[in-house]
Amino acid sequence: MEKNKQVIIDSLPEGKLVEGNYRLVESSLPQASSGEVLVKTISFAITAGTRAGLQGSASYAGAPKAGIVMNSTGIGEVVESAEESFPVGSKVLTQTGWQDYSLQKIESLTLMRDDVDPELYLGPLGINGLTAYFGLLEVGDPKSKDTVMVSAAAGSVGHMVGQIAKIKGCHVIGVCGNDDKCNILIEELGFDTALNYKDANFRQNLKDATPNGLDVYFDNTGGMILGSALFRMNTGGRIACCGVVSQYDTSSPEPGPRGIPGLLINNRIKMEGFLVFDFAEKYDHATSEILEWIESGDLKILTDKVEGLEAAPRAFVDLLAGGNIGTRIVRLS
Amino acid sequence: MEKNKQVIIDSLPEGKLVEGNYRLVESSLPQASSGEVLVKTISFAITAGTRAGLQGSASYAGAPKAGIVMNSTGIGEVVESAEESFPVGSKVLTQTGWQDYSLQKIESLTLMRDDVDPELYLGPLGINGLTAYFGLLEVGDPKSKDTVMVSAAAGSVGHMVGQIAKIKGCHVIGVCGNDDKCNILIEELGFDTALNYKDANFRQNLKDATPNGLDVYFDNTGGMILGSALFRMNTGGRIACCGVVSQYDTSSPEPGPRGIPGLLINNRIKMEGFLVFDFAEKYDHATSEILEWIESGDLKILTDKVEGLEAAPRAFVDLLAGGNIGTRIVRLS
Repeated sequence: MEKNKQVIIDSLPEGKLVEGNYRLVESSLPQASSGEVLVKTISFAITAGTRAGLQGSASYAGAPKAGIVMNSTGIGEVVESAEESFPVGSKVLTQTGWQDYSLQKIESLTLMRDDVDPELYLGPLGINGLTAYFGLLEVGDPKSKDTVMVSAAAGSVGHMVGQIAKIKGCHVIGVCGNDDKCNILIEELGFDTALNYKDANFRQNLKDATPNGLDVYFDNTGGMILGSALFRMNTGGRIACCGVVSQYDTSSPEPGPRGIPGLLINNRIKMEGFLVFDFAEKYDHATSEILEWIESGDLKILTDKVEGLEAAPRAFVDLLAGGNIGTRIVRLS
Repeated sequence: MEKNKQVIIDSLPEGKLVEGNYRLVESSLPQASSGEVLVKTISFAITAGTRAGLQGSASYAGAPKAGIVMNSTGIGEVVESAEESFPVGSKVLTQTGWQDYSLQKIESLTLMRDDVDPELYLGPLGINGLTAYFGLLEVGDPKSKDTVMVSAAAGSVGHMVGQIAKIKGCHVIGVCGNDDKCNILIEELGFDTALNYKDANFRQNLKDATPNGLDVYFDNTGGMILGSALFRMNTGGRIACCGVVSQYDTSSPEPGPRGIPGLLINNRIKMEGFLVFDFAEKYDHATSEILEWIESGDLKILTDKVEGLEAAPRAFVDLLAGGNIGTRIVRLS
């Protein structure tokens, strides 16, 4: 009889996340009740934001705790169903978690289109792509010719933010953590400038790269990069607060940047946090537009694939150290 | 021959401002050229925001330096003029500075109405009143029944913010630095709750006072009070960043509050800095409305008067220590 392989949280991290915070277990296959289906995971995304959940109750991601399956968005196939709307064989987007099989209530399922690569739903057509789209366009509100900067620019959200800003006619600066990523941003994705924040001259390089200041800063990191960006913001500038990856992999987050709120006042800066779920009623329009950009070649999607459920803990630890380029996806065999 | 008594900045403060940073001098009366008038100061306001200017170039207040007359908004009477638009005897609002007489270009003068107390132009009808009005209504954007909190609530801006929020039907919490001020907020101004931030139980008291969270926080202080307010903000809450009085009287401002930007994201909080000058085209409407509220008794104005130019340095040092209630005005003899 088939078993369900699962990666559970063995302990919440103290300090940095380590592979040993996870444990592989096997359980028996669950049975679907009415209103539920059994989904076999095809692949799932590993995203930095889920690290925040492991810090406890302060996170929007909820409060995962020891003993439960690690949470993640994934795609899968319905393998057991008495529900007409999701018959066996349906390809769905859902919160699979890090496991081979999951029981899902049908209201938590999104049916994927047949005519597109299903893994696009883990990147541009899913949460990450929609986060880039709404955070940039609705919160950052860039105008043509604006200078837009994005941090974690080679990440799943960041690499789309920069390209969408280019589509909108902006001058785009990407900040990332190594020179290979910088090259990809410029050579493959068409960013105007890429800056390595680990460079000892980062602040000066940022200053040199922004002779006209910054109109929009899309912040995926918080910390030092946010602190530096604040000093380059133009009057009336907008900071879209999307993530705080610099502060996720720790039990003791740093204080906020100097200059808050003083610089916000002096330069009339708006700093606004957002969650993509607030824009749910506009998802359909956004995904259509994103798909058009992909088809036209204006939006290139970077994906970084890892094979096998067992590889997930290491892939997550590595992602938090900046090891990924684009959306990191774990494919189950 | 009459002399001009002036208080000049003798040295920029290192650490806290002290009276010895100022020096009283006498100079000869200046002569008005074409396009200028000579204004005799009647009184001027002392405001915490000018302390930021003494920290150097990071402030919107410009960068006052040793050897120049201390800056301030004041009211005065034109005593020498060849300008038809501002004949001798005109009562004007302008940047008098801390001195008996000042030369003013006519474009820097605002003619005051004859039918209102001129000192209202240093409070509700001037920069402080307009700051309270636009910061609350345009940036904070309170809805009826919202819970609104304001810090430095017994100060010139703060005591008006709270009352305007009451006029708009909000539940209002004021934060200030002693129990006498708390009593005035409740008994004289109609605030619903007043909290002393120096109370050892301030965070718990704030929690107890906000069972429904905070929808709007009007921040005059930054620092610990901002840090505490962040944890009480409701989803979609607005923080109007007006001033950073907790960080003015120092040469080494603290880091920003913990929880920025993390809490902004989790609770979709908008934090926006503003300067009143950005709303200049709407000043007339605002001053009419403020004057109506004063006349109807809905808006009570607290003023705290000091006599004599020589008293200004001490009055400023004392204001930075929280000694004022309402708008602090220095009247010249």
